[in-house]
Amino acid sequence: MSSTRPEIIVHPKSFPPSDLQSRTYDVVIIGGGPAGETTAAGVIRGGLTALLVESELFGGECPYWACVPSKALLRASEVITIANMVGGARQRLEVLTTKYGEPPKPEVNLEGLWERRDMFAHDWTDDFQVKGMRSIGVDVAHGFGRVCGVKKVAIKDWHSKEEVEVEAKHAVVVATGSTLIVPSIEGLKDSAYWTPRDAVSAREVPDHLIVLGAGAVGAEMATLYNQLGSKVTLISNSLLPKMVPEVGETIRESFTKAGVDVKLGLKVTSVSREGLNIKVFLSDNSMVEGTQLLIATGRRARTTGMTLESISAATEGAWIEVDDSMCVKAVSDGWLYAVGDVNGRALMTHIAKYQARIAGHAIVAKSKGTYDSEVRAKEWDKSVAKPTGRAIAQSIFTDPQVAACGLTPAEADLMGVKTRTVSVQMSGPGTWLHADGYKGWAQWVVDEHDRLIGATFVGRDVVDLVHASTTAIVGGMTLEQMWHVTPPFPTMSEVYTTLSEAAETT
Amino acid sequence: MSSTRPEIIVHPKSFPPSDLQSRTYDVVIIGGGPAGETTAAGVIRGGLTALLVESELFGGECPYWACVPSKALLRASEVITIANMVGGARQRLEVLTTKYGEPPKPEVNLEGLWERRDMFAHDWTDDFQVKGMRSIGVDVAHGFGRVCGVKKVAIKDWHSKEEVEVEAKHAVVVATGSTLIVPSIEGLKDSAYWTPRDAVSAREVPDHLIVLGAGAVGAEMATLYNQLGSKVTLISNSLLPKMVPEVGETIRESFTKAGVDVKLGLKVTSVSREGLNIKVFLSDNSMVEGTQLLIATGRRARTTGMTLESISAATEGAWIEVDDSMCVKAVSDGWLYAVGDVNGRALMTHIAKYQARIAGHAIVAKSKGTYDSEVRAKEWDKSVAKPTGRAIAQSIFTDPQVAACGLTPAEADLMGVKTRTVSVQMSGPGTWLHADGYKGWAQWVVDEHDRLIGATFVGRDVVDLVHASTTAIVGGMTLEQMWHVTPPFPTMSEVYTTLSEAAETT
Repeated sequence: MSSTRPEIIVHPKSFPPSDLQSRTYDVVIIGGGPAGETTAAGVIRGGLTALLVESELFGGECPYWACVPSKALLRASEVITIANMVGGARQRLEVLTTKYGEPPKPEVNLEGLWERRDMFAHDWTDDFQVKGMRSIGVDVAHGFGRVCGVKKVAIKDWHSKEEVEVEAKHAVVVATGSTLIVPSIEGLKDSAYWTPRDAVSAREVPDHLIVLGAGAVGAEMATLYNQLGSKVTLISNSLLPKMVPEVGETIRESFTKAGVDVKLGLKVTSVSREGLNIKVFLSDNSMVEGTQLLIATGRRARTTGMTLESISAATEGAWIEVDDSMCVKAVSDGWLYAVGDVNGRALMTHIAKYQARIAGHAIVAKSKGTYDSEVRAKEWDKSVAKPTGRAIAQSIFTDPQVAACGLTPAEADLMGVKTRTVSVQMSGPGTWLHADGYKGWAQWVVDEHDRLIGATFVGRDVVDLVHASTTAIVGGMTLEQMWHVTPPFPTMSEVYTTLSEAAETT
Repeated sequence: MSSTRPEIIVHPKSFPPSDLQSRTYDVVIIGGGPAGETTAAGVIRGGLTALLVESELFGGECPYWACVPSKALLRASEVITIANMVGGARQRLEVLTTKYGEPPKPEVNLEGLWERRDMFAHDWTDDFQVKGMRSIGVDVAHGFGRVCGVKKVAIKDWHSKEEVEVEAKHAVVVATGSTLIVPSIEGLKDSAYWTPRDAVSAREVPDHLIVLGAGAVGAEMATLYNQLGSKVTLISNSLLPKMVPEVGETIRESFTKAGVDVKLGLKVTSVSREGLNIKVFLSDNSMVEGTQLLIATGRRARTTGMTLESISAATEGAWIEVDDSMCVKAVSDGWLYAVGDVNGRALMTHIAKYQARIAGHAIVAKSKGTYDSEVRAKEWDKSVAKPTGRAIAQSIFTDPQVAACGLTPAEADLMGVKTRTVSVQMSGPGTWLHADGYKGWAQWVVDEHDRLIGATFVGRDVVDLVHASTTAIVGGMTLEQMWHVTPPFPTMSEVYTTLSEAAETT
């Protein structure tokens, strides 16, 4: 019922700020997640010195409480499901019942599952990450960092509560990520609810999990706990609303078939816990009673206490607005950067790392005086992000999986771009051989010049299919060109030929 | 010991040529495999009439005796191996011993495996294929087709032995594929050896399979029968010689670890069968005694008896030389086409189908008088193949799998193109999460303008990773551009970021 892991892990006093050999660095980075680590590596490679400050575990949200443990947990069901769909392998899994139809519900081994997840989460210790950073010459400090002036960062030791001030010669980088928005719902605060951190670090399978919110996190956790045997109720306004509508519809059908109770178009009015049970009251006056409630309703910038207001950089909790080099717009002289979730551009690890590579190149170029308008104008320069609104890829590990990149027709419409779509079933030797009875769906979005600007794939094991579309979008490729790109037979990638052929007649 | 299936299936007299309603078609296509079927569909779509002639089973080699059954057979081991590499799933396979180390040798269920393969091979019947062709308006005839004059095809009924002559108003297309080259080895003829057809249609696992030839087919069959429990000896001059050298080396190590006896740099001098055993004598004076011998030493054009010499199109058994529209170079007036394996350009189903789409467009354009030099000059026109020597992709379903596209450095060198390579281990969260202990290797080949011209991936489940590289090659993309293409986290596609980062420092 209670959280398995504390919300904030206060790190043992292994690298207190008071132990730092220097009080001046070329670059000071607050936040040791993927964005911070990648920025640090980039500036070090450029010959600068760097200090990386982390208030919890070096590595950040992703490896301990987000993408990595969630995928470690979801993977076992994926492989058992696929094995169940391949003759010759299926018969080796005959310990499984087929009571849930075809393919049978995967029955994973829970001890094996927790063990794998704990291994990927490094048992929630960051020695490995710290070692990696120090091995390339990054200094590290455990403590709470805040911007305390121009090019100045104060780091509070969690144990002594004292602040140590350090100076950045070239840049301060805010890479503190995002944090859960807990909605203001009557009774929620006292209901011992689960956060996404609890859901991915759990060692228990709730009898009845109620999931509030059906973005990627909510949908993945509903998938996981359904597969692990929980009764699951998923409550949200809509399901995967950032994707094209067909995605939400497919996942809703799949959830329903798997026994997940999907309640859309509803809001929670109040919550009350009574011992082991929790009651969730809904806007249609109905009530759901479960044993655990997961809040996965959205995120905000993790900037509380960082005193960014003092330099007029941003309001507490609001996304920090940046330019295409990740430089904070509201601060003059270009010394403050915001990289990753905290700038609100796209809350994904791979985009955080992309932005961090960009910021690293920009900071190094500025420090050398080579970051001028000519550099910025150079088309593929590494210190400026491309108009990646058009090419951001995302994978969601529901069952079936979802992978998408670029723009949806709705997003394009908002930008005044006229589009047409090409949609096909993933039906061909490559998918049939992959798994008997395979079903999948794919869609391309093209602009009026027949350039590819978006793509979506829904089906088992599709997450690696999207990268060819992302590549084509960045390359500015047209349908004419794509027609000549031939995937090897027999593979799932054949869907690209199916799309090309369908585009001819659409 | 004997072949499970006859080498030539003489089809029941379901569609004899004498029953044809017409003796004149716009297009007559000899060979009903992927190349012939796809050409037929293309010309029908363009408003022409088409006759498709097949001497064995409509569908051709691929669905009955090649790619499809071989992958149906190989897939079960793949999924069991991966399930064994994922905690939570592995424990569900505890019926498996781990005597072979980590991951344990997959133990597939043979009955389930044969059943799946038979389903994919449609029990070696072609009703499904014939129905598909007829449903889109293609006329079909079972019989042996040969070119008997300008725009003339004679079709011999296998049963009556009588020939029926048909005329093509616009084009004759030879799409008869390729056939095994049986080497001249003393004693081989009388040794009741296996062809690749036998290997993929077998219902027995030989005690000791000797495989002669280590191209894609030989390597895949060695993989399969090793996994099914045969002792396997693989004899060849070299292993996967068309790939970059690292591939052959990796697969050799993997074979050796799995217990396959790999003998390279050797030739077979003679063969002798003695009852259930077969003795293979080698050029180093050694001898291997097994229970079955698979000949997988190469292929030639399947044109025997097609009287192509009579119109000076090609020599019997030699590849038919074509231009980039698949039009036969040696024949004037452009009415004869050769599509697929038979032209020797690249012996792969997906390339056969690509060529067939090209030929279909070219034939339709010519019939409309719109196929002139202007059409051909238009850069991405669908009636002319792109310089696909640079972008042909291939997947090989060994363990680990191999996927490659474009040029190797050696091929580029022959073309006078200066290259450099970028090589990386596939090591990152995406691969670790895919399977515990995952190992993989990837390489990019770039030209002196930093354009991508080749790529290779070796590792489990890599066959869908190559398409993004093929896309980039066709799009003429540079490393600068590729740096900005971000794969979703955590997926195997992250290897693209690893390659981009390595390219910066190479």
